[in-house]
Amino acid sequence: MNYQFSNNVPASDEDPVGNILKVAGDPKVISFAGGLPAPELFPVEALKQATNDVFDESGRQALQYSIAAGDPKLREQIAQRMNRSGIKCDIDNIIITTGSQQSIDLTAKIFVNPGDTVIVEQPTYLCALDVFRSYGAHIVGVPMDDDGMQMDALEQAVQANPNTKFIYTIPSFQNPTGRTMPADRRQKMIEIAEKYNVMILEDDPYGAIRFAGDDVAPVKTFEHDERVIYMSTFSKILAPGLRIGWIVAEKTLVKKFILMKQTVDVHSDNLTQHIIAKYMAENDIDAHIAKIKAVYRKREGIMMAAIEKYFPKDAHYSHPEGGLFIWVEVPGVDTQTLFNTCIEHDVAFVPGEPFYADQVIPGTFRLNYSNMQEDQIVTGIERLGNAIKETIAQSVEV
Amino acid sequence: MNYQFSNNVPASDEDPVGNILKVAGDPKVISFAGGLPAPELFPVEALKQATNDVFDESGRQALQYSIAAGDPKLREQIAQRMNRSGIKCDIDNIIITTGSQQSIDLTAKIFVNPGDTVIVEQPTYLCALDVFRSYGAHIVGVPMDDDGMQMDALEQAVQANPNTKFIYTIPSFQNPTGRTMPADRRQKMIEIAEKYNVMILEDDPYGAIRFAGDDVAPVKTFEHDERVIYMSTFSKILAPGLRIGWIVAEKTLVKKFILMKQTVDVHSDNLTQHIIAKYMAENDIDAHIAKIKAVYRKREGIMMAAIEKYFPKDAHYSHPEGGLFIWVEVPGVDTQTLFNTCIEHDVAFVPGEPFYADQVIPGTFRLNYSNMQEDQIVTGIERLGNAIKETIAQSVEV
Repeated sequence: MNYQFSNNVPASDEDPVGNILKVAGDPKVISFAGGLPAPELFPVEALKQATNDVFDESGRQALQYSIAAGDPKLREQIAQRMNRSGIKCDIDNIIITTGSQQSIDLTAKIFVNPGDTVIVEQPTYLCALDVFRSYGAHIVGVPMDDDGMQMDALEQAVQANPNTKFIYTIPSFQNPTGRTMPADRRQKMIEIAEKYNVMILEDDPYGAIRFAGDDVAPVKTFEHDERVIYMSTFSKILAPGLRIGWIVAEKTLVKKFILMKQTVDVHSDNLTQHIIAKYMAENDIDAHIAKIKAVYRKREGIMMAAIEKYFPKDAHYSHPEGGLFIWVEVPGVDTQTLFNTCIEHDVAFVPGEPFYADQVIPGTFRLNYSNMQEDQIVTGIERLGNAIKETIAQSVEV
Repeated sequence: MNYQFSNNVPASDEDPVGNILKVAGDPKVISFAGGLPAPELFPVEALKQATNDVFDESGRQALQYSIAAGDPKLREQIAQRMNRSGIKCDIDNIIITTGSQQSIDLTAKIFVNPGDTVIVEQPTYLCALDVFRSYGAHIVGVPMDDDGMQMDALEQAVQANPNTKFIYTIPSFQNPTGRTMPADRRQKMIEIAEKYNVMILEDDPYGAIRFAGDDVAPVKTFEHDERVIYMSTFSKILAPGLRIGWIVAEKTLVKKFILMKQTVDVHSDNLTQHIIAKYMAENDIDAHIAKIKAVYRKREGIMMAAIEKYFPKDAHYSHPEGGLFIWVEVPGVDTQTLFNTCIEHDVAFVPGEPFYADQVIPGTFRLNYSNMQEDQIVTGIERLGNAIKETIAQSVEV
């Protein structure tokens, strides 16, 4: 068959990151390329217990069709967590989604016509870029510094694009950079959004995984008129295989999300929603998150110390206070060449290019520390340091 | 906020079927309006055992991120079932989806640009119409008779719409009509699709629930060039709360589905995929399906006998040999008036109107028998018969 695809389909079948992950998946390679949480921290026994209780107490209900908004008991648990984080809401402000990726997809489907502008951090979560492209969005990247998206550049971008539908931001421990926007910048983002009447999509998968420094309230807590669509997920605080995320938004907007959600998959897995609600009722999820933080703090510290020891002195890198990622910039290095050299050294990362909507800053790459044993981190970063020095030496020779 | 939605969002927030289900949900109403499988048939204990085995044997893997195509063990189980049904395939022909609704949504997203034609049965599954509308499709309905879509009308529709992307068909025990296309008509559909070079989306959620008559092979088994996208689900043969369906298509096309699936929700619930694969490895799902068939056969028979006893003689109705639904046509009755009278009689159905893409046949409605105890079926159909007679008498008076 010679298929005639829609404009929603990417012209190319190429999946550069998929190819990188495939190469990095070689067992002898120490891979910092992925973005997986540490599976040894999954609370398997507690989830098993919760699941057995669901089967015993409400098995037939959990296995039957449910409502698109999501299980009320789970939304109640989430509402309590959200209110503790400063976001005032009740269960009618919340819709359950099949993970953060679907939250992004639904938001884009609801707001973006072809040609509409979506403003993103530069760099940003690459699979969000794929979503926005699938709806024909005009994507505008805003430069970042160590404190995240730069607000003067954001205002210029919004001014220059009057058809902007929303600003997509990952304000805490951003993917890929690990950077966090301070409170004053979050407040400024709200001011700009209100002044130019654009929405904000606040993607917060990592905010709960803070292992250093002080909490910063979500962007949504600074709003005056419910223009922020807040989204988070159980992927990093519980288990990503469960594919359960949520959106918090104004109630009339949640109704639109519910209509669209019915159309795309009726509702998210009902058994899993029951399991998570039961898990949260039977366990202190914050105590579990504290264990995650302790492990990630240690791994980040070991990686940072190894970077300082083995990387060239002119390398820049973020200093995350939470989340899963460190962002590195080595001036003058071509990251594809570096990647190839790394593979010879049995170590891998993700090159920065795919994370940029438009203008790429060369020499950048992402390192993940959440899913790697401590001794492997040191060995891997030493190999990576050697590969960087080798690549620089070769480029000087050329 | 005064939101500026995309063209993907329905102009109206009205949800006529949702409103009907709400009214029908009154505990004193005997409702034939829903489309739920019988929860008393869910194999709760066997699923609980399978789940415990998943947690014990591969808990961390089931809770971690997986691949967009879906769990290979589950795809292998599905491939074996598909080959037994006559559809030749291996796991690379299969992608796991978050239920049939997502299979329809992904297909529309991949193929439909605004203005492209999608041809459907008249009437058809109303939530498929919602999907096609969300992508701006031009929907063309083809009349049916007791043997399903009429092939001469189909050929005319394809000829008249050269921008047709695909024919959407539910060939077995169709929703809402319960009708089944015989083999010769399926073959003719393939001939038309090949002649005019259009795709077919074969939606087969009910095919395995045949309780009378002889099996008819899937439309896909008649194809010569893999132009049929076949889709099915565990919703009716196991449990709909699990939200797991699948697509069988040509391998290069499955790769496009995988790319798009990654964009919309990364992958479907991994724990649930593991549970179903384990359940199928530990149990004979066909023995379970046999239990479903026996119960539904009995309920359909009771409903049919009650219809013959209590409905006016000029009522037409389908005689399903499987599935969940009977379709009724009572000439000269306005079904909204009938619905209101029925609610006074504490009985409910779904009026036919929302199932039609364009030209509505008045006086039609859908009855569901899968989720109703036998004595309730008789009482409910008696009430419905009385309401029909009352409505006809009133309309004659007017």
